[in-house]
Amino acid sequence: MRSVFVHPRAICESSEIGPGTSVWAFAHVLPGARIGADCNLCDGVFVENDVVLGDRVTVKCGVQLWDGITVEDDVFVGPNATFTNDPFPRSKVRPERFARTVVRSGASIGANATILPGVEIGTGAMVGAGAVVTRSVPPNAIVTGNPARIKGYVTDTGRAGVPEPGSGPPETGRVDLGVGGACLHGMRVTKDLRGELSVGEFERELPFVPRRYFVVFNVPSREVRGEHAHRRCAQFLICVHGSCGVLLDDGRNRREITLDGPALGVHMPPMIWGTQYRYSPDAVLLVFASHYYDPEDYIRSYDEFRKLARDLPAPT
Amino acid sequence: MRSVFVHPRAICESSEIGPGTSVWAFAHVLPGARIGADCNLCDGVFVENDVVLGDRVTVKCGVQLWDGITVEDDVFVGPNATFTNDPFPRSKVRPERFARTVVRSGASIGANATILPGVEIGTGAMVGAGAVVTRSVPPNAIVTGNPARIKGYVTDTGRAGVPEPGSGPPETGRVDLGVGGACLHGMRVTKDLRGELSVGEFERELPFVPRRYFVVFNVPSREVRGEHAHRRCAQFLICVHGSCGVLLDDGRNRREITLDGPALGVHMPPMIWGTQYRYSPDAVLLVFASHYYDPEDYIRSYDEFRKLARDLPAPT
Amino acid sequence: MRSVFVHPRAICESSEIGPGTSVWAFAHVLPGARIGADCNLCDGVFVENDVVLGDRVTVKCGVQLWDGITVEDDVFVGPNATFTNDPFPRSKVRPERFARTVVRSGASIGANATILPGVEIGTGAMVGAGAVVTRSVPPNAIVTGNPARIKGYVTDTGRAGVPEPGSGPPETGRVDLGVGGACLHGMRVTKDLRGELSVGEFERELPFVPRRYFVVFNVPSREVRGEHAHRRCAQFLICVHGSCGVLLDDGRNRREITLDGPALGVHMPPMIWGTQYRYSPDAVLLVFASHYYDPEDYIRSYDEFRKLARDLPAPT
Amino acid sequence: MRSVFVHPRAICESSEIGPGTSVWAFAHVLPGARIGADCNLCDGVFVENDVVLGDRVTVKCGVQLWDGITVEDDVFVGPNATFTNDPFPRSKVRPERFARTVVRSGASIGANATILPGVEIGTGAMVGAGAVVTRSVPPNAIVTGNPARIKGYVTDTGRAGVPEPGSGPPETGRVDLGVGGACLHGMRVTKDLRGELSVGEFERELPFVPRRYFVVFNVPSREVRGEHAHRRCAQFLICVHGSCGVLLDDGRNRREITLDGPALGVHMPPMIWGTQYRYSPDAVLLVFASHYYDPEDYIRSYDEFRKLARDLPAPT
Amino acid sequence: MRSVFVHPRAICESSEIGPGTSVWAFAHVLPGARIGADCNLCDGVFVENDVVLGDRVTVKCGVQLWDGITVEDDVFVGPNATFTNDPFPRSKVRPERFARTVVRSGASIGANATILPGVEIGTGAMVGAGAVVTRSVPPNAIVTGNPARIKGYVTDTGRAGVPEPGSGPPETGRVDLGVGGACLHGMRVTKDLRGELSVGEFERELPFVPRRYFVVFNVPSREVRGEHAHRRCAQFLICVHGSCGVLLDDGRNRREITLDGPALGVHMPPMIWGTQYRYSPDAVLLVFASHYYDPEDYIRSYDEFRKLARDLPAPT
Amino acid sequence: MRSVFVHPRAICESSEIGPGTSVWAFAHVLPGARIGADCNLCDGVFVENDVVLGDRVTVKCGVQLWDGITVEDDVFVGPNATFTNDPFPRSKVRPERFARTVVRSGASIGANATILPGVEIGTGAMVGAGAVVTRSVPPNAIVTGNPARIKGYVTDTGRAGVPEPGSGPPETGRVDLGVGGACLHGMRVTKDLRGELSVGEFERELPFVPRRYFVVFNVPSREVRGEHAHRRCAQFLICVHGSCGVLLDDGRNRREITLDGPALGVHMPPMIWGTQYRYSPDAVLLVFASHYYDPEDYIRSYDEFRKLARDLPAPT
Repeated sequence: MRSVFVHPRAICESSEIGPGTSVWAFAHVLPGARIGADCNLCDGVFVENDVVLGDRVTVKCGVQLWDGITVEDDVFVGPNATFTNDPFPRSKVRPERFARTVVRSGASIGANATILPGVEIGTGAMVGAGAVVTRSVPPNAIVTGNPARIKGYVTDTGRAGVPEPGSGPPETGRVDLGVGGACLHGMRVTKDLRGELSVGEFERELPFVPRRYFVVFNVPSREVRGEHAHRRCAQFLICVHGSCGVLLDDGRNRREITLDGPALGVHMPPMIWGTQYRYSPDAVLLVFASHYYDPEDYIRSYDEFRKLARDLPAPT
Repeated sequence: MRSVFVHPRAICESSEIGPGTSVWAFAHVLPGARIGADCNLCDGVFVENDVVLGDRVTVKCGVQLWDGITVEDDVFVGPNATFTNDPFPRSKVRPERFARTVVRSGASIGANATILPGVEIGTGAMVGAGAVVTRSVPPNAIVTGNPARIKGYVTDTGRAGVPEPGSGPPETGRVDLGVGGACLHGMRVTKDLRGELSVGEFERELPFVPRRYFVVFNVPSREVRGEHAHRRCAQFLICVHGSCGVLLDDGRNRREITLDGPALGVHMPPMIWGTQYRYSPDAVLLVFASHYYDPEDYIRSYDEFRKLARDLPAPT
Repeated sequence: MRSVFVHPRAICESSEIGPGTSVWAFAHVLPGARIGADCNLCDGVFVENDVVLGDRVTVKCGVQLWDGITVEDDVFVGPNATFTNDPFPRSKVRPERFARTVVRSGASIGANATILPGVEIGTGAMVGAGAVVTRSVPPNAIVTGNPARIKGYVTDTGRAGVPEPGSGPPETGRVDLGVGGACLHGMRVTKDLRGELSVGEFERELPFVPRRYFVVFNVPSREVRGEHAHRRCAQFLICVHGSCGVLLDDGRNRREITLDGPALGVHMPPMIWGTQYRYSPDAVLLVFASHYYDPEDYIRSYDEFRKLARDLPAPT
Repeated sequence: MRSVFVHPRAICESSEIGPGTSVWAFAHVLPGARIGADCNLCDGVFVENDVVLGDRVTVKCGVQLWDGITVEDDVFVGPNATFTNDPFPRSKVRPERFARTVVRSGASIGANATILPGVEIGTGAMVGAGAVVTRSVPPNAIVTGNPARIKGYVTDTGRAGVPEPGSGPPETGRVDLGVGGACLHGMRVTKDLRGELSVGEFERELPFVPRRYFVVFNVPSREVRGEHAHRRCAQFLICVHGSCGVLLDDGRNRREITLDGPALGVHMPPMIWGTQYRYSPDAVLLVFASHYYDPEDYIRSYDEFRKLARDLPAPT
Repeated sequence: MRSVFVHPRAICESSEIGPGTSVWAFAHVLPGARIGADCNLCDGVFVENDVVLGDRVTVKCGVQLWDGITVEDDVFVGPNATFTNDPFPRSKVRPERFARTVVRSGASIGANATILPGVEIGTGAMVGAGAVVTRSVPPNAIVTGNPARIKGYVTDTGRAGVPEPGSGPPETGRVDLGVGGACLHGMRVTKDLRGELSVGEFERELPFVPRRYFVVFNVPSREVRGEHAHRRCAQFLICVHGSCGVLLDDGRNRREITLDGPALGVHMPPMIWGTQYRYSPDAVLLVFASHYYDPEDYIRSYDEFRKLARDLPAPT
Repeated sequence: MRSVFVHPRAICESSEIGPGTSVWAFAHVLPGARIGADCNLCDGVFVENDVVLGDRVTVKCGVQLWDGITVEDDVFVGPNATFTNDPFPRSKVRPERFARTVVRSGASIGANATILPGVEIGTGAMVGAGAVVTRSVPPNAIVTGNPARIKGYVTDTGRAGVPEPGSGPPETGRVDLGVGGACLHGMRVTKDLRGELSVGEFERELPFVPRRYFVVFNVPSREVRGEHAHRRCAQFLICVHGSCGVLLDDGRNRREITLDGPALGVHMPPMIWGTQYRYSPDAVLLVFASHYYDPEDYIRSYDEFRKLARDLPAPT
């Protein structure tokens, strides 16, 4: 199994094929392609020259990989999934250079999906069958539809909302989310004929005294915000109007929360990769931060974050 | 034509191919596949092992049939239509068992459609070109879009609404729908400044005295209800708010009606397969039934219904 | 106290004043006015000639009663309440005849209300302070605003909705309303992903087998329907979409119910004066009736109904 | 002018009339009424027994003051304005006790207004002509309509919104409002394709580090909130969604601000009487407070506040 | 009847009372008032000094006319109608000068109406009973409600819409409106799946070639536009979106039209007083004019227009 | 390169292949196909018999061209793009004749697009990747989505709106659009409390006196109107409500404008191919035309127009 297998009805013109890789019938690999180990190129796959595949990549039948495409380790490409490399193709008009498309390690692309040129499919992302991907896909995001929209994130525990009744602390207590010390807080709400009031006392009910607040609003519903981690700054998030989804990721575990009113807050300690998305059109997200703004405090690359996070001691 | 034809550039490793079947160039059939008579597998088709095809199936170019897929008699699969068998594919991660997909007899799958794993495409259904099918498709339904939604049903007479003006009985009369004795009834409506009033007298204007009523409401618009027949119970349906589509099928003929207000009712005698769908968000469907509820009275399998219906004498 | 009192600063030119009636300072009664016993005409009241007052009528300061106005027994007219008798007044243009306004027995007219010409204020009705009454007011109705709208009805027990939790029968049981045998019925509702379904079985769960149904819809919200009683016909009312208020009155007791969905029905036995109002714009009221339509069965005068109802034996 | 004047055509049966007061023609004062100095009771006014009037009260023609009504100093009552003292009047049915109505000092009641029983008209309030007042009116509020709603407050400088362009500080600066040191703050807002973000840094941009926050929401639009002052606690208000009006009053000056988005905050130092109203249905008001909650810190009586405020040194 | 009648219980201190005028019981006229001939001041009316009344004015009971009010000939003032002369009254605070209110000839003020200070009630206008008039009322307008809004205009023929079916010309013909040669035009409309198209050819179908067009839009619904006449310029009006009411008045006859779509136009020859109102929020009124703009062409005073119009020969 | 290249693993059964054309591995061309010069048929392409291809056509991998399909010169067909030729396919049921599909010269079809049977893809059109084309596509249109909708047009200068601020003439001036003399006109708008008014004077501000007007309304948003040129008639377009897009094309240059209110008009001289689309649901487009309707004046074929336009002298 450690040798390269090329089906007799396949055409393999490249010599850079890793051990354990199979090329099946009617597949065609052009000379310049570089393909890693233990890959599987099924019947009818076509690979151009300026293409790089990592290890353990599966490419199902009917897929073409064009010049400009990079596929990292452990990627799955479903049958008839279709890549492109020219945003405005005209016959016999060759663009100055082809758009570059990258599929990050561990991502999957569903059957018959279409990937527009120049996008990046993030680590661990899942492109649904039949999706038409017109913009880059964040790490671990699940996208479907035409055009593709984020429908969720790949989490460990599924999409979590409010803690199960009976199983957790009282309404105004807190629930550990199992992600880097993050907690869901139930905030006191009182209601009378004149409306509703939600209150929080810093240090007593919230874990810190804020140095600043910020308010996020008028977010187009398809947009994703956040997507970074802080080295030292803690945050406390409350969606005071409308709703939004919050994804927390400590590099080991991932969990998603829906915030939908002043009664619910989430405490994000430092070193959590946070993502907010699924903003309702009228969402207003209020955030308290424990430190003044400091650009050095931000980690903006998910891969860098994962490396740093893995060096941290596991929470007890 | 009664022998099996395999194009010299095809690879056919299975020996269970029915007479009259053709396998065209660049197609590839693995050893375990079982294929019926008079099928047509066009250029580039790929068939895995755990696959069963009935008789007279057409599979156009660029289609793959994966382990776990069953295709009954007389099915058409359009070019580049794409099947799947793993709802959450990851490279080199093999699911415990593959989802099983069934395409019932007489169904058609349009060009470039995508079929998610584990669905059933019902008898006679029509999947539109480019559709992404994420849920099972009822018998005779027509689905399109991404995700696919029911757009109609395959009927004999097209989508019928109110009878053509001039061609039928007076406003408050009844029209025979040509399906198992079913009739459309125009109900009396009076209107004054204080609003509108619609009236029906049982036995005099409606065909029976009801034993019970039921009210269907808050139906998500994509949902289908009904999809069963009664052995003895007759029903009378009025959509008193909003609108919905009603499909009537006596096993021989099919016809669709739109109910959209208290002025229109439809009488469904026993032994009619009824389906309601295209509910508007505010639809309220009022149904009178001639018998008390009796689970023995229900026929819930369309195939069983068709068999029973064919044994009935044709209406005169 | 049985004599007539006229304040020395009043002007009383009529001789038809009942015993026990007082006419206070600066009031002025013209010769043709006929005033009953035990009335009280406060300071500054002005009464024209073609005016009839019953017994025990109170007319507070600043009120004028013009030609064409009849006030029955036990009516209260608040201070500065203003009557009219010409719908399109022009100076020195006398209408052919004045519009006739009637205030039925037991009604009250709030302070500073305005009563447009030709309306009838029903028995026991209550016109709110500052209201501008442009249309007739049904018996026992409470009206407020400019223009005046029905805000409720004078009931014995206040506005009743669903029975108090814990205090009544189970969800699908029935509650006696204390009005002529009328009952509130909780109807079975089942709910699944495909929508909701409410069911009722006649004779088993509902008190009769219907001879007819009717559906009331598109009722302008300010309109009142019903306002009659049946001699023999029972009715069962369900508001299958939207909501409406139902007032039940057996001549002794009155109670109001809000119907707001298929889960709630009300059984109205014969000899109940029924009124429906506060229709939401999308309300659809479904009514089952125990008899075919018979015009002889209707009692359309509230006064006639009350007389008949009082001759019935009290329910036990 | 220091004597009491009673017009010869008036009837004054009370002896408790203050010096300088006039009672004009056709007016009628019953024996129990107590009336202060320098009042003016115009033609046709009627005053019952259990009535108290302060000094310098004007009562225009056609007004009656019934048992249970108290009118403080400097009140104006417009012509034909109508009071009541029984919420559900029936002829010859005397309530156990009359509702008590109070008109606080300096208030005005517009012509032909209707005042329902039991309300309090606050200090300095203005009831518009023709208004029908069904609920108590806060100090200095202006109410109009049927039923009456707050349309604004009596301020020194009119209704103030954002400072005039060109006349004030830069967009993110602050503007002194001339009321007890209160300032309007322009907050930084940044906007990009992913939505908008507004930020505030405590101590640097906001005047204090908060000890708690609260969020006010789901306020019915007709409701008024606030209406108290703090002895030591400062507040910072931002209407992060929708809009609301904020009235600030330091006992000497009053000014109104409209907050309508995250870009605008208002700092209310201690000893300011604050009122919030005109909430839009979707308004979310975020408040930071400089102290933890302390019931001793609240001043809830406007009259007490005014007394305390007047003892403070004037701001420089 | 040509002499002045003063009831013995009235107080009339003015000597400027016209012949045929009556002053009834408990009325009070101060010395400076000037009152015309054949007026009728009913019981309890109060008239201050700086007041002028024309001839044939009726003032019903409970009305006060304050300093600053002018009432022209033939006006009717209903009972308890209430005038004001200070927009912000405070006790013992006298405004620098009173607001002046004018009621033009032939107008009527309904019972218990409230007239705010400083408004003008136009010639022939009709203020509904209970209305609270906060803005000036155009000639012949009918206003009701709190605050008062225009509900229509006093016309000869009632509110006219589209000509009665069967009684008029074909759909694309024209109908003479009986007002100064004005015509309603039915415009050709064609409709297909791509939408609707309405066409008009100048000179052929429309009566003139336009020199200019204008488009009126974003009109607040309570606003009135037009209210002038042209000496020479003809206009053609089409409400291409939404709807509005058009009142045409040639000085002799008045008629109202509702324009509600591109299918209907109205030709207004010169010397018609035109008013547009009841604009729906989305109304867009397109006007073609036969002449360029010329300020000399406008007649902006209704009284001047009526004088000019009466000198024109009657249309044949 | 001028010879025909057929890859040894391809099957080419047709002899009508133009010089310079390549047929790559696993492609299969049936005997009846006719293919022009300099075409490129990539790996796995399948071409049936009744198919015609022009010159310089590119067909990427995984595409099938069925009987009934015509592809003109210079067309690009992306990978896995899927054609069809039977609108209601059933296995073994052959339609009487196949629907004919035409792809006009210079058009491009994106990767994995689906083309339903019988449509025409216009000259220069661009079908987006993953689009499902259910209706014909106009010349130069860009379509995307499922079902495909027009998202724009291929223009020279991108989608143009209002001219850049500062770069152009004053607000009420005109801007040359660089397309056959067409100009954008800023129309005068005045605004006051009574609403807004926009005016235009013919000959003075607009380039001609109109002979007729027409109004386009109730256009379904997906529809395209116009799509013709006039030989002599000039037009002036104003979108008086809502908005729509206007594409102007003089055969040499193309530019798109958004009209969105009465303040903006566009003058289209004769010999401009005009298209209107992206109608908002409430759009009302007002058009003035310089000539009466004349069917001879219309050019309805884009190809004919382009030929005529190219013979015109270039504008200076």
